[in-house]
Amino acid sequence: MKSYAIGVDLGGTSVKLGLFTCGGDLLRKWEIPTNRAEQGRWILPEIAASISGLLAEEGIPHGQVRGIGIGVPGPVDGGGTVNHCVNLGWGVFNLKERMNELLPDIPNVAAGNDANVAALGELWKGGGMGRRSAVLFTLGTGVGGGVVLDGRIVAGANGGAGEVGHITVEPRETAVCSCGKRGCLEQYASANGLVRMAKAMLADCGTPSALRELPDFTAKDVCDLAREGDLMAVRIVDRCGEYLGRAMSYTACAIDPDVFVIGGGMSRAGGVLTDAVRMYYRRYAFHTSTETGIEIARLGNDAGIYGCAKMVLDT
Amino acid sequence: MKSYAIGVDLGGTSVKLGLFTCGGDLLRKWEIPTNRAEQGRWILPEIAASISGLLAEEGIPHGQVRGIGIGVPGPVDGGGTVNHCVNLGWGVFNLKERMNELLPDIPNVAAGNDANVAALGELWKGGGMGRRSAVLFTLGTGVGGGVVLDGRIVAGANGGAGEVGHITVEPRETAVCSCGKRGCLEQYASANGLVRMAKAMLADCGTPSALRELPDFTAKDVCDLAREGDLMAVRIVDRCGEYLGRAMSYTACAIDPDVFVIGGGMSRAGGVLTDAVRMYYRRYAFHTSTETGIEIARLGNDAGIYGCAKMVLDT
Repeated sequence: MKSYAIGVDLGGTSVKLGLFTCGGDLLRKWEIPTNRAEQGRWILPEIAASISGLLAEEGIPHGQVRGIGIGVPGPVDGGGTVNHCVNLGWGVFNLKERMNELLPDIPNVAAGNDANVAALGELWKGGGMGRRSAVLFTLGTGVGGGVVLDGRIVAGANGGAGEVGHITVEPRETAVCSCGKRGCLEQYASANGLVRMAKAMLADCGTPSALRELPDFTAKDVCDLAREGDLMAVRIVDRCGEYLGRAMSYTACAIDPDVFVIGGGMSRAGGVLTDAVRMYYRRYAFHTSTETGIEIARLGNDAGIYGCAKMVLDT
Repeated sequence: MKSYAIGVDLGGTSVKLGLFTCGGDLLRKWEIPTNRAEQGRWILPEIAASISGLLAEEGIPHGQVRGIGIGVPGPVDGGGTVNHCVNLGWGVFNLKERMNELLPDIPNVAAGNDANVAALGELWKGGGMGRRSAVLFTLGTGVGGGVVLDGRIVAGANGGAGEVGHITVEPRETAVCSCGKRGCLEQYASANGLVRMAKAMLADCGTPSALRELPDFTAKDVCDLAREGDLMAVRIVDRCGEYLGRAMSYTACAIDPDVFVIGGGMSRAGGVLTDAVRMYYRRYAFHTSTETGIEIARLGNDAGIYGCAKMVLDT
C-alpha cells in the first residue's frame, strides 16, 4: 500500500523536504544545506540519503512511498530533463533517471520548476485552494511566477511559462533588468525593484517624506510608511500596484484563470498593496474577468514541498 | 464504423459547414444563411436540417458520423452551455442538449467559442501544424484570438481566455475601445484600429504621405503604401507591429506557446507587418522564448470548420 509522498524543494542555499500522507497531510518537514561543491554533483545523493534516513527513522519501507516530487530552480521539461540550473552548477541531465539510480525502490519521480511547483502548492492547499486554475506572482528579491491550468502546471514550449516577472510593463524604461531587457515587472514589483523605483521617484520631486530620513530604506519601510499615510510612500506603492494589476490583466486576457495568488516577502505588505493591485486589475481586465479573485499566498516557504507532493499524487 | 465528422462554424451572417473524414480530410463544405429571426430560435433546427440533407445526398447514415463540432460567436463552457450570443439573439441554454433533440442519432456534440476553435484548426492543419500549443491573433474588423495548449482549447474561468485583442498595450490612451476600456490592442491592430491610428498620426505631424491624398483610405492602403516605402505608412505599420509584438511577448511570459499565428484580413499585409512584429516580439520576449515562431494563418475562413471537426475527433 502506497501511503506516502515526498516533496523536495531544491533551492540555492537549502533543500526543504516534506513527508506527506497520500491524503495531503504534511507529517514532517526538514531541511538540509545545498552542497554546491563540484558543480552540485553531491546534491541529489545527499537528498537521497536524507530521504532514506528519515524513512528509516519513521519505520516506513521505501515500497510504501508513492513517489518523490522535486522542484528545481531552473528549467525542467515534462520528462525530467534539467536544462542548466546556474544556481546549483548543474548542466543538462535527466533528474528522474539519476534519482532512480539513487533510490531504485521509489521509481516514481516527478520534476518541475520551483516557481511553477509553488503555484501548484498554493492552488492545492493555499491561496487558490478549491480552484482549478491559478497564476502565482511571487514578489521576492525578484519576481517569479507559475501558471496552473486545470490542476496541471504549464511549463511552456521553452520552459518560459509563468515568467510573469519579465512582462514588459514599461516599454520606455532605460534601466536594465537582471534578464537583460528593460521595463520588466520585476524592476518595480520586487523588493529590490520597489526600492529602486522609490529612490528614482524621490529624486524626481521635492515632496516631503519620512523615506528621505532613511538612507537605506527597504521595501518593508516603504509599505509600512504607506500604511501610515506617508504621501510619497503611498504614491510608490500605488505605482507598484498599477504595474502588478496591469500584468495580471495581461495574463487574464491569455488564460483567464480562476484566481491570482500573490506570494513572496512583499505579499506581507497587506491591504495597502493588494487594494491598489485589485483597483488597477479591474481597470485593465477584460469585462468577463474583472471579478477574478486576487488572494495572498498562504503556504509561505512550504508552497514548494506541497506542490512537489501534489505532482506525485497526480501521477 | 464512425468514419465522418462535421464542423459547424456559426457566424452572425452565415453558417459554414464542413464534412470531414476521421482522418481529417475536408470532403465537402457548404454554407447557409444565419436566420436571426425570433431570437435565433431557428438557427439550430436549420443547421440540423442542412446536415441531414447533406448526409442523405451523400448516402451517409447518421450512425457513421462520429460527431458534430460547433463554434459559436460568444462564450460557451465545456459542458456546452452558451452564455449569451448577442450577435445571434441567444440567451443561456445548453447547445449540446438542443442538438441531441434535433439529431438524436448523432449524440456526440462538442461546442466551443469561434475564435478558440479557429486557433485549434490552425494548430491542427494550418499555420501551427505539427505543434502542441499556439496563440492565434485574428486581425479583422476587431482583434480576436484563441489559445490552445497541449492540443486543447483554453476557455478560461469566465470564457475570457484568448481575448488578446483586449490586452492594454497603451495605458495612456484616451479613446475608448468597443469593449469600454482604453488602450486595447484592437484599437491599433485591427483594420479599423489601424486606420484610426493612422489618421491620428497624420494629424500629429506634417510629414508628406500619399495617404493624405486618400480621404477614405483602408488598412490595406496603409499596408500597400508601407510596402512601397511611404514613410508615414511605414511608421504606422511599425507602431502596429510594436503593439502586436509586445502583446505576444505578454502571452509568452504567461504560457510560452510553441507558435504564434496571425490570421484575419490584416494578415495579408505580409512581410511589412510580420517583420515588424517579429522584431518587437524579440525585443520584449523573455530570453527563453525569443525564437518562438510567428506564422501566418493558412486556413482562412475554413479555420473554424477544421477546429470544430478536430474537437469531435479529440473526444
